[in-house]
Amino acid sequence: METGSRSKKWNFEGNEWLNASAVSVRGVFNKLKENINNEDKRPAIYMCRVDPTENPLFQTPLIASDAIASAVQSYNFNSYPPTLGLPDATRAIADYLSSDLPYQLSPDNVFLTIGGTQAIDIILPVLARPGANILLPRPGYPQYESRANCCHLEVRHFDLLPDRGWEVDLDSLEAKADENTVAMVLINPSNPCGNVFTHQHLKRVAEAARKLGMFLISDEVYAHIAFGSNPFVPMAVFSSIVPVITIGSLSKRWFVPGWRFGWITTCDPNGILKQTGILKLIKNYLEITTDPPTIIQAAVPEILKRTKEEFYAENLNIMREGANIFYDRCKEIPCLKCPHKPEGAMSVMVQINISQLEGIIDDVDFCVKLAKEESVLLLPGVSVGLQNWLRISFAVKRSALEDGLTRIKAFSLRHAKMS
Amino acid sequence: METGSRSKKWNFEGNEWLNASAVSVRGVFNKLKENINNEDKRPAIYMCRVDPTENPLFQTPLIASDAIASAVQSYNFNSYPPTLGLPDATRAIADYLSSDLPYQLSPDNVFLTIGGTQAIDIILPVLARPGANILLPRPGYPQYESRANCCHLEVRHFDLLPDRGWEVDLDSLEAKADENTVAMVLINPSNPCGNVFTHQHLKRVAEAARKLGMFLISDEVYAHIAFGSNPFVPMAVFSSIVPVITIGSLSKRWFVPGWRFGWITTCDPNGILKQTGILKLIKNYLEITTDPPTIIQAAVPEILKRTKEEFYAENLNIMREGANIFYDRCKEIPCLKCPHKPEGAMSVMVQINISQLEGIIDDVDFCVKLAKEESVLLLPGVSVGLQNWLRISFAVKRSALEDGLTRIKAFSLRHAKMS
Repeated sequence: METGSRSKKWNFEGNEWLNASAVSVRGVFNKLKENINNEDKRPAIYMCRVDPTENPLFQTPLIASDAIASAVQSYNFNSYPPTLGLPDATRAIADYLSSDLPYQLSPDNVFLTIGGTQAIDIILPVLARPGANILLPRPGYPQYESRANCCHLEVRHFDLLPDRGWEVDLDSLEAKADENTVAMVLINPSNPCGNVFTHQHLKRVAEAARKLGMFLISDEVYAHIAFGSNPFVPMAVFSSIVPVITIGSLSKRWFVPGWRFGWITTCDPNGILKQTGILKLIKNYLEITTDPPTIIQAAVPEILKRTKEEFYAENLNIMREGANIFYDRCKEIPCLKCPHKPEGAMSVMVQINISQLEGIIDDVDFCVKLAKEESVLLLPGVSVGLQNWLRISFAVKRSALEDGLTRIKAFSLRHAKMS
Repeated sequence: METGSRSKKWNFEGNEWLNASAVSVRGVFNKLKENINNEDKRPAIYMCRVDPTENPLFQTPLIASDAIASAVQSYNFNSYPPTLGLPDATRAIADYLSSDLPYQLSPDNVFLTIGGTQAIDIILPVLARPGANILLPRPGYPQYESRANCCHLEVRHFDLLPDRGWEVDLDSLEAKADENTVAMVLINPSNPCGNVFTHQHLKRVAEAARKLGMFLISDEVYAHIAFGSNPFVPMAVFSSIVPVITIGSLSKRWFVPGWRFGWITTCDPNGILKQTGILKLIKNYLEITTDPPTIIQAAVPEILKRTKEEFYAENLNIMREGANIFYDRCKEIPCLKCPHKPEGAMSVMVQINISQLEGIIDDVDFCVKLAKEESVLLLPGVSVGLQNWLRISFAVKRSALEDGLTRIKAFSLRHAKMS
């Protein structure tokens, strides 16, 4: 094949979005992993991705794994799933979510996805049209940026304010919106910041979205992972103010990110999503995309109905303890500053005072050298929108959390600038 | 929300590809299903989608479902899968495929996907660049067209020739290719035609692809489903002639389309896919997309290694019997003509002589009225590129096949034009 003489045709560097814009947490994780020194005999500590299975205390309930085993061994769920999902699964999710809402969600408003990732991969192309833009939080979750780039949806960022408990900067939100803004995204409980938005603040966000004429995408992949003073409030509570598209998942609350099961729900008592054709586009997209395996869909009703309150409560206690340890031990590291004690989700943002460090130029450099010298993996803040910050997952086992923070402290002291 | 005053912004009809181009087999299936008359007390017969679980004789081996149950009950596979898949799974697939090849595939050439669908959804955007085009077979599989439209990859069709056993019309292939053609797709064993390409013909196709300077995407979702005189030959046998990207899946050979597990393999001893950056783009894409569940990946080595030859052989006998029944009974229906007895895959193309029918204007009309009057669902040929043809799945149980053909015959006679 004459690849040489046809250099333009065979130069796939031109596939811009796949080369330049495809930032993902796991992409960074994979790159960082390559920096780990094989001669370091200590176990590597992964606080880069948020994978709760890193903590052996976080085990999905037996009823959940048994439900999958039963589904596959029944031989009843080997066929293609229906486009709109198994009716028992969508009904179970509608019921599960409705218990937190002032109204009953219909199964027709529930669309099954392959984890939260596919939910993003579906909803952004549905909203994309030439000239349209979407408002994303900074810091945020890079899958939104990557997917928006894929489908040529312009990205604009509004700020989350560290000094105000990571609340939305409503002024920056308003400044960024214009007549081509189709939606904004809020992640609650917050990945990456670890805060839980108050009822009052969520209502203000919904009112702002209404005023600015945009849909609200509420990423609630960490729903109910709230162990501080603010209870988790689903954004759909405010769907009479503005249409809310919620993203949910089994991954975090049930500790099964590897099952890759999530959902999109449309919460819209005023029927605006239907009227504007969005509902139809979601259904069209589902017809040409792949689905969560039928055997997993079939297990969902059991999982949602039979998981016990004690399971949730015990795990929140473990997470609260992890957050406390993290927050206390982090204070002992001079170059790091955690502006807000984590009270939800499974990660937290920490600012690096680069000026206190010798020979470390930024957050990426910090993370690469930390991986090399201490076999600890953290996510550089720039991957989630904030340079010279770190995103740290505290959903690891207690000993790894303590050991990880000890290593980070040793690293920081070793690289401290002589004053 | 003032949706009225912002009509342009809120008019999502502008999302062209999702409205107009999203043709899928299951989309048509869903539409046709709505036409079934609820007062017809006979069971509906589904020969529209190819879902082998419609035939109760087609049951996945016990070792396959047990492998999934064990994986989920081990609690070892609840974490996120690695971007490039579980190493045991990619190795098992490389070994499984290599047994049909003159060389050993490396696990590095295997990429796991959520069914064949996601394989298409990954490979087309990877190849898409402004101005590029791809050659697709007519008739073919509409997921290719839908996905190409999504990523603005221009589609051109070459013909498969019914009177030559559905071989590729190499002249039409050559006529459609130009300097912007990046790849061609061939589906072998053929969906929708039911033929199996010969070694000799596949080699000619590979040589044509080389001459025309394009990659060859070989959709082998029906690999080994060959029960006529032509054995199944994987296109990768010819990868020293032209780089071959193969798509495979568990769905059809193991009767588990609902498990949604497939793969892409790159077969390229000359390293052209690496050199042109395609391999890197596939990896980039995998980092920002969702994966097959870890619990399913974990079961793959057991499934591939422990399925017995007898299982495959017995099922081919059942399929051959179905194909024979279909072919013989179809001859009894005057307005239908099956140009080539099916010898592979699970579907066949049949031409309708519309001029013999009264009050039926085309294939879509035929299928809609057949659904209404006889509760039999067939796929209109126009959905796979050939107007006034039908795609019929014969992977249904014998009684349904016979009953279905009886009903199609009754329908055809009832609508026959008086001569």
